[in-house]
Amino acid sequence: MSNSNNWERYKNCLYTNETLGLALDYSQIAFPEGYFQEMASLMAETMQMMEELEKGTIANPDEKRMVGHYWLREATLAPNKEIEAEIRQTIEKIQEFGQAVKSGKILSPTGERFSRFLLIGIGGSALGPQLISDALMIKGKEPGKSAGLQAYFLDNTDPDGIDRVLDQLADYLAETLVIVISKSGGTIETRNGMLEVQSYFTARGLDFAGQTVAITTKGSKLDLQAEKEKWLARFYIWDWVGGRTSVTSAVGLLPAILQEIEIMAFLQGARDCDVVTRSAKIRENPAALMALMWYFLVQKESKRNMVILPYRDSLQLLSRYLQQLVMESLGKEKNLEDKIVHEGLTVFGNKGSTDQHAYVQQLLDGTNDFYALLVEVKQDQRAHPVFVEKDVTSGDYLKAFLEGTRAALSRKGRASLTLSLQELTSYTMGVLLALFERTVSIYAGLIKVNAYHQPGVELGKKGANHYIALQRQVLEFLRERKGAAYTAEKLAEELGQPEETELIFKLLEHLYLNKYHKVKKEKGQDLFSGKYFI
Amino acid sequence: MSNSNNWERYKNCLYTNETLGLALDYSQIAFPEGYFQEMASLMAETMQMMEELEKGTIANPDEKRMVGHYWLREATLAPNKEIEAEIRQTIEKIQEFGQAVKSGKILSPTGERFSRFLLIGIGGSALGPQLISDALMIKGKEPGKSAGLQAYFLDNTDPDGIDRVLDQLADYLAETLVIVISKSGGTIETRNGMLEVQSYFTARGLDFAGQTVAITTKGSKLDLQAEKEKWLARFYIWDWVGGRTSVTSAVGLLPAILQEIEIMAFLQGARDCDVVTRSAKIRENPAALMALMWYFLVQKESKRNMVILPYRDSLQLLSRYLQQLVMESLGKEKNLEDKIVHEGLTVFGNKGSTDQHAYVQQLLDGTNDFYALLVEVKQDQRAHPVFVEKDVTSGDYLKAFLEGTRAALSRKGRASLTLSLQELTSYTMGVLLALFERTVSIYAGLIKVNAYHQPGVELGKKGANHYIALQRQVLEFLRERKGAAYTAEKLAEELGQPEETELIFKLLEHLYLNKYHKVKKEKGQDLFSGKYFI
Repeated sequence: MSNSNNWERYKNCLYTNETLGLALDYSQIAFPEGYFQEMASLMAETMQMMEELEKGTIANPDEKRMVGHYWLREATLAPNKEIEAEIRQTIEKIQEFGQAVKSGKILSPTGERFSRFLLIGIGGSALGPQLISDALMIKGKEPGKSAGLQAYFLDNTDPDGIDRVLDQLADYLAETLVIVISKSGGTIETRNGMLEVQSYFTARGLDFAGQTVAITTKGSKLDLQAEKEKWLARFYIWDWVGGRTSVTSAVGLLPAILQEIEIMAFLQGARDCDVVTRSAKIRENPAALMALMWYFLVQKESKRNMVILPYRDSLQLLSRYLQQLVMESLGKEKNLEDKIVHEGLTVFGNKGSTDQHAYVQQLLDGTNDFYALLVEVKQDQRAHPVFVEKDVTSGDYLKAFLEGTRAALSRKGRASLTLSLQELTSYTMGVLLALFERTVSIYAGLIKVNAYHQPGVELGKKGANHYIALQRQVLEFLRERKGAAYTAEKLAEELGQPEETELIFKLLEHLYLNKYHKVKKEKGQDLFSGKYFI
Repeated sequence: MSNSNNWERYKNCLYTNETLGLALDYSQIAFPEGYFQEMASLMAETMQMMEELEKGTIANPDEKRMVGHYWLREATLAPNKEIEAEIRQTIEKIQEFGQAVKSGKILSPTGERFSRFLLIGIGGSALGPQLISDALMIKGKEPGKSAGLQAYFLDNTDPDGIDRVLDQLADYLAETLVIVISKSGGTIETRNGMLEVQSYFTARGLDFAGQTVAITTKGSKLDLQAEKEKWLARFYIWDWVGGRTSVTSAVGLLPAILQEIEIMAFLQGARDCDVVTRSAKIRENPAALMALMWYFLVQKESKRNMVILPYRDSLQLLSRYLQQLVMESLGKEKNLEDKIVHEGLTVFGNKGSTDQHAYVQQLLDGTNDFYALLVEVKQDQRAHPVFVEKDVTSGDYLKAFLEGTRAALSRKGRASLTLSLQELTSYTMGVLLALFERTVSIYAGLIKVNAYHQPGVELGKKGANHYIALQRQVLEFLRERKGAAYTAEKLAEELGQPEETELIFKLLEHLYLNKYHKVKKEKGQDLFSGKYFI
């Protein structure tokens, strides 16, 4: 499986840090001798840029924003006293609120202790809390219940999905704390979820405002609504925190503390990792090392898929979290010099060894367009093992499958990185997420793209708004001409929008199938000649 | 957003089938005029091959196996009367058993009605049941409970993951039916899960055998164990059913019927889809159309990533299911002519519109190395809508986001296919899964790879077995020399395996950290000079 040269290479290419409980093995990346030397000046430039960014330079030029998620865990680094104070006060407020909810000092409007929370958010306002919840779930006193409040999430505008979650909560509504998270305060999916839940609570005679908190930017639409309706509490985030790097802000901390997760240890892990990953000594900086490996693999070897394989069930959401962090940060049309580059790094994966029974076949035999990032937690949490064979536990097999896959990838000439956490705790989760934040920042520096904006996503939102506006026009038109039936083509013509025939056709079909819009249909000779009316 | 040429193109490139409740829009793929003509003879050849395969030709030459998942829903097609009878009998047995469990005719050994099942399986023995369960979950009478038995899954050899699932079941063990699924009967992760659960049950004084069923090949190790230990029941699958296409066998049907899912409608959907996708008239065959589009995108345009975006929470597992079906079937080193081709098609995605807030930024602006497969369910299940704005529901927004993303992709020159299900039912799920099975088969035919084996995955398993064997050697060695401490290097030398130093180093660290192996450590000057002993 290996030879003694491998052992020397392994020793040379294994970064370890006992304090952080972290190791990174980059021995399976075939970067050439002299690669670190070759990259030294670009790397120095990038680390300089990072330093300025941390001091509060506008690092997101087109949105004129600072990038401050590093301050969230070390407020003294904030560029001014106001920001420093706001960070500290927010953490204190979260601790106080969390304590009060858990101790029963804050009760629901009907006088009950909160036993559950329902988080309404999407993207950066949901993925971090979902990952943390799943990774760090603490066993409660009763079997099947985690410690603290049980977590539920609404992260879409799918009415059937909303119904499913609300059905699970139906018996516990009065003891459910609702947490609405939207940085801008105007995210449509989140607003819809909030309105749905509000209407559900109200229909059951519950005081929605009295059991709901908001996490948003001060003065946002959501903030104003929460203020006006006298919601239970409001927590702030700031324009210098990006959604995808908000896990150490109130977005991550409030849900975590409600689940008995040690948020100060989590912040400490992130802070300690930040210190280490600020180092200009590349071989002592795991983020710089990882970024350099990504750079080699993507830029020199054209391996644009990164497969995340955590060998631990509780880290299954890591790939979804990193999908957002990496792809939204790096998937850009233009670089900082305004040149068209169409950059990107695709992230996917679920967990090992489960995925070995799914797509590892392709990794080993198929297109070599990827590298694997294997993630392990060295220590099982379980104290009393079951031996499945003489001297062998399930956990030994988990490790064996990781090593087997790493060796098989190696044998087949496929690249892999192995990231090891000593154990899975609030502290090491802080380390892990800060490590990836920094890696993405450094890598973006190396390829010179703005990691802190997401200009592309506006186009899809515009298209959605256009659809909704057209829906209103169509409904009004049909209502005004009650009883008169139109084909899509005719209706588009009547509305003076023949170029929208396709969309109007789909829209009519959607309105017809979802009966509550009261649109009816006369069948036509073919699919496209059906006539619609109200 | 579109123009009247688009409308004509849309009409020309929209496949619909009312009976199946299915539509496929391929208008956003820029295949050239004459493409269907160009592909006609290769397609005819492939359809001929499919016909022979369905008749029982050995379609998996290196494993000398027939490929018979199409017979599972139309037993009359089976190549002989024995197979036909076995298929029918198995379905009858599943119905009988399912009925008996649900009616309380079959009770647990302690005399309780089964309220839950715990499925132990991995890969093809878990993904189908997981998808079906999530997609078709039927609301039960009590809030928060689905109809029939509540579903739990163990799909890995992670002890901490196993503990988490068992903790959820702790209060309900006596009413939990255990379903162990392994086609070969020797899958290690599944065996470990089974042994863990068995030990957990036994420790609590429960009769594991009396509440456990096996789904496996007749005569397998698992079958013999179940027979010997007198398990509650055994259901068979056959060597001509591949794991990744086993969802219409007992693997998919037994868990489904226990959850009140209509398995006969599910089979009917698959059967009806099979009839349609057998057609040699390409424009009337949605699987052939989809395969041709994949062929154009992958082979001509080098878009090797397929992003699955179902706009429906309940279809979130579809991408994981297809990851296995597609990547394990298509990710191959050699084609049928034994030429090195390194084929593959990478599949990932979660759900819309959620993913628009994660990685759609990269899809729109970044590397154009993918195509999107948008999936919609046209009809919301919900009867009483909440209007989030005048005339607009959450469901309208879900549709709007899909159309907005499709339009944005189009504007940016990104390819997309849109697959629509009229509604989400047992029947249409049967249609959907059969459609993808057939599409993958046809596409594999077009690129001439064997879609029915997975030779690559053996290498990883061998590596794992090697690790476990080495662990035993190391433990025995240290025990025999009780108290004597060895560095990894020294130990590798003593074992006569210096080429395994790296693996032995990792192994020692793993044994040391997981205390139950009783390996101790003397710290060395550096990481690599630590000495281990028992």
